[in-house]
Amino acid sequence: MAQKPSIPKGTRDFSPVEVSKRNYIMSIMRSHFEKFGYQPIETPTFENSETLMGKYGEEGDRLIFKILNSGDYLEKISEEELAEKNTKKITSKISEKALRYDLTVPFARYVVQHQNEIEFPFKRYQIQPVWRADRPQKGRFREFYQCDADVVGSTSLWQEVELVQLYDSVFATLGLNGVTIKINNRKILSGIAEVIGASDKLIDFTVALDKLDKIGEEGVKKEMLEKGIAETALEKVQPLFHFSGSIEEKLDKLSAMLSSSEEGMKGIEELRFICENVMNLGLQKANLDLDVTLARGLNYYTGAIFEVSAPEGVAMGSIGGGGRYDDLTGIFDPKSKLSGVGISFGLDRIYLVLEELNLFPETVSVSTEVLFFNLGESQALEAMKAITVLRKNGVKAEMYPDAAKEDKQFKHAQRRAIPYIVKGIEGELFSVKHLVTGEAFMVSVEDLIGRLK
Amino acid sequence: MAQKPSIPKGTRDFSPVEVSKRNYIMSIMRSHFEKFGYQPIETPTFENSETLMGKYGEEGDRLIFKILNSGDYLEKISEEELAEKNTKKITSKISEKALRYDLTVPFARYVVQHQNEIEFPFKRYQIQPVWRADRPQKGRFREFYQCDADVVGSTSLWQEVELVQLYDSVFATLGLNGVTIKINNRKILSGIAEVIGASDKLIDFTVALDKLDKIGEEGVKKEMLEKGIAETALEKVQPLFHFSGSIEEKLDKLSAMLSSSEEGMKGIEELRFICENVMNLGLQKANLDLDVTLARGLNYYTGAIFEVSAPEGVAMGSIGGGGRYDDLTGIFDPKSKLSGVGISFGLDRIYLVLEELNLFPETVSVSTEVLFFNLGESQALEAMKAITVLRKNGVKAEMYPDAAKEDKQFKHAQRRAIPYIVKGIEGELFSVKHLVTGEAFMVSVEDLIGRLK
Repeated sequence: MAQKPSIPKGTRDFSPVEVSKRNYIMSIMRSHFEKFGYQPIETPTFENSETLMGKYGEEGDRLIFKILNSGDYLEKISEEELAEKNTKKITSKISEKALRYDLTVPFARYVVQHQNEIEFPFKRYQIQPVWRADRPQKGRFREFYQCDADVVGSTSLWQEVELVQLYDSVFATLGLNGVTIKINNRKILSGIAEVIGASDKLIDFTVALDKLDKIGEEGVKKEMLEKGIAETALEKVQPLFHFSGSIEEKLDKLSAMLSSSEEGMKGIEELRFICENVMNLGLQKANLDLDVTLARGLNYYTGAIFEVSAPEGVAMGSIGGGGRYDDLTGIFDPKSKLSGVGISFGLDRIYLVLEELNLFPETVSVSTEVLFFNLGESQALEAMKAITVLRKNGVKAEMYPDAAKEDKQFKHAQRRAIPYIVKGIEGELFSVKHLVTGEAFMVSVEDLIGRLK
Repeated sequence: MAQKPSIPKGTRDFSPVEVSKRNYIMSIMRSHFEKFGYQPIETPTFENSETLMGKYGEEGDRLIFKILNSGDYLEKISEEELAEKNTKKITSKISEKALRYDLTVPFARYVVQHQNEIEFPFKRYQIQPVWRADRPQKGRFREFYQCDADVVGSTSLWQEVELVQLYDSVFATLGLNGVTIKINNRKILSGIAEVIGASDKLIDFTVALDKLDKIGEEGVKKEMLEKGIAETALEKVQPLFHFSGSIEEKLDKLSAMLSSSEEGMKGIEELRFICENVMNLGLQKANLDLDVTLARGLNYYTGAIFEVSAPEGVAMGSIGGGGRYDDLTGIFDPKSKLSGVGISFGLDRIYLVLEELNLFPETVSVSTEVLFFNLGESQALEAMKAITVLRKNGVKAEMYPDAAKEDKQFKHAQRRAIPYIVKGIEGELFSVKHLVTGEAFMVSVEDLIGRLK
């Protein structure tokens, strides 16, 4: 191979420092997921195509990576069919498996497939990569991790309360102060649609309202009118254009506005329960806000909708999102209409935010703590004896493998940012130096353990 | 979808208990890898096909899962080509990416691609799944994890010493006593080939010798003669048929046998260095043995060859293996002939062995420690307040989400093997019961934390 090897576009190699930082984030998520009672599951990298196809819309189907059947996959296809060059038809014959596109559909499949072994309500978390044949661009990859926590099998709103707390706990532990957990409810959006007399224009309405910051009240109204929303309808929801204040104030405004919509009032009642209890229990570092424009995956969620935005001043989209979907499992079993609610953490974006705010602890990327120089075979065995003891005591230690020039070994320690070097042995004592402070001392193995632990 | 959803053959769903047990093994590996100075990297799930194809032999190429190109992948193929139905030719046109087949080739690619950023010698570990379109059977899957530790860029035999220690440390921490780390050297095998005057019959020779246990000396000799190995040749290596004793005794026998082969003597010298130093440093729980029939991946390894077998009495093949390959990176860059040496842990088999010997700690699969019953909305908030405090103190706690009948909540705790339940609140005190011992007590939140930590 003449050219330099490379990796497919949209994929990434992760260096030791990157893996350590990613593992740091994921281990914090994992520990909080488990403290909240969520249990880990893992599903296969590829699913049967029929499990995935048709679940993400036509665009989704196109973005799913398909795996070519093994063996002579063309054998069963007639020459006429081949000549037709109907890609879609041929794909279904030469490919029966596809890479996971998200974690939600495999989770629904898992729940239906294992429903007799599962004790409901089932709180599960899942941290695994997914793949999408999207056009790669800054911050968007073809292979990326999703980190999801969902509960299935209960409609209790305490779960929504708990999921807000879970977001708060994870971000607080990551040192990320001032994230805003935005919450909305699909039923409120439906109520608005009812009130403006246009259930079919709900998306146009929320899309336009979302631009209030940028184009102002007049601009938004203009766009709404253009989309066919009546002037009289806009009057009914006029308070939305000046929608500020505390969550309670917002809920009161919504109550006045949506009093004629049963569904809207139900949504307000749900939101009130969630927000009041979250406030009673208290958040550590995050802000909770009601955002009536929030509509992620509108066709998907049926109750609460969540989205987390990074602290102010950090230019980053949402770093998490989720919501309630009343029928998670119906796609695989019409008899099993289990309600689910869950949230997702955006690993890549959280990574970028922590990097930008310099929030990774320095210790995360410290690998080896002590490098013993290799001073020739006679001393190497003594060094390895000490290293063996250090490792048994939990210290990350190693010896430079070759008896190279001292200068070379010194540079190796520097380049790898190893803090301590051992550059001499005298009887039971080791000559240790700290590469940053320059501090040098003679010490026994036992004392070295004490210093490093 | 009418039929029950399923997953592709050879793949697995992992339940919470299984994930916890697998993570237990992997976290022990990870902690030892890092104590020994190995650093984690991760590579993409799929590589460019040209990176993988031709690296594992013809059979390997066949077993690599290929990913179908996105979009209209048939467009560029002429009707004549299609009509030809030459699968191999068409595959190369409709598929440019393939799933990782092992971790070694992607590692070699990584090293060459990032050689200017890497500080050598580079000790890396990698724990990621790989995929093979093998016929699935008991214990053989199409998706499985590999757990590899390798050093690249140094020929020092101290690394072989350290890798034996690494095996010993991991298995000792897993509580797996009495594993045997078998070691051999490719140069010894070449020396034997030289001595018997048949370098081309080496594989036939080792395959036959390996059957000594089963078919006895006469059977083995018969097979060797049938394969065209001369009677006089067999006389020269007669000691191999009674090859017992300590490592030192075996090395002495080999020295006598291979004195005429320079390469063989070099192999003996290498093995002597490794074994003597391992013995001087001491092993915790494992046995080291010289196994002259050991020849895994013969065409691949150039120096030491390792294989670990499960403790006696456990019917399981090897649970680990590895060796030295003098030219790891040459396949991607002829100028970069870096020597590598590494070992691999067989996660699935280690899992089965630990299960069989009942070696998983009970705590591994304990998820939630306390379940608060939901006794109606008035008490639910008090329960959630206590739970919030418990979680902040590291206790895994949750509330049953719905105010269901006590019996139902009780069964939920039992089925999930949650040890403690809280079934009543009186002021500041919680009525706690241990579901196994039956022990019941009233306790404050603070005291409950004390008990559970």
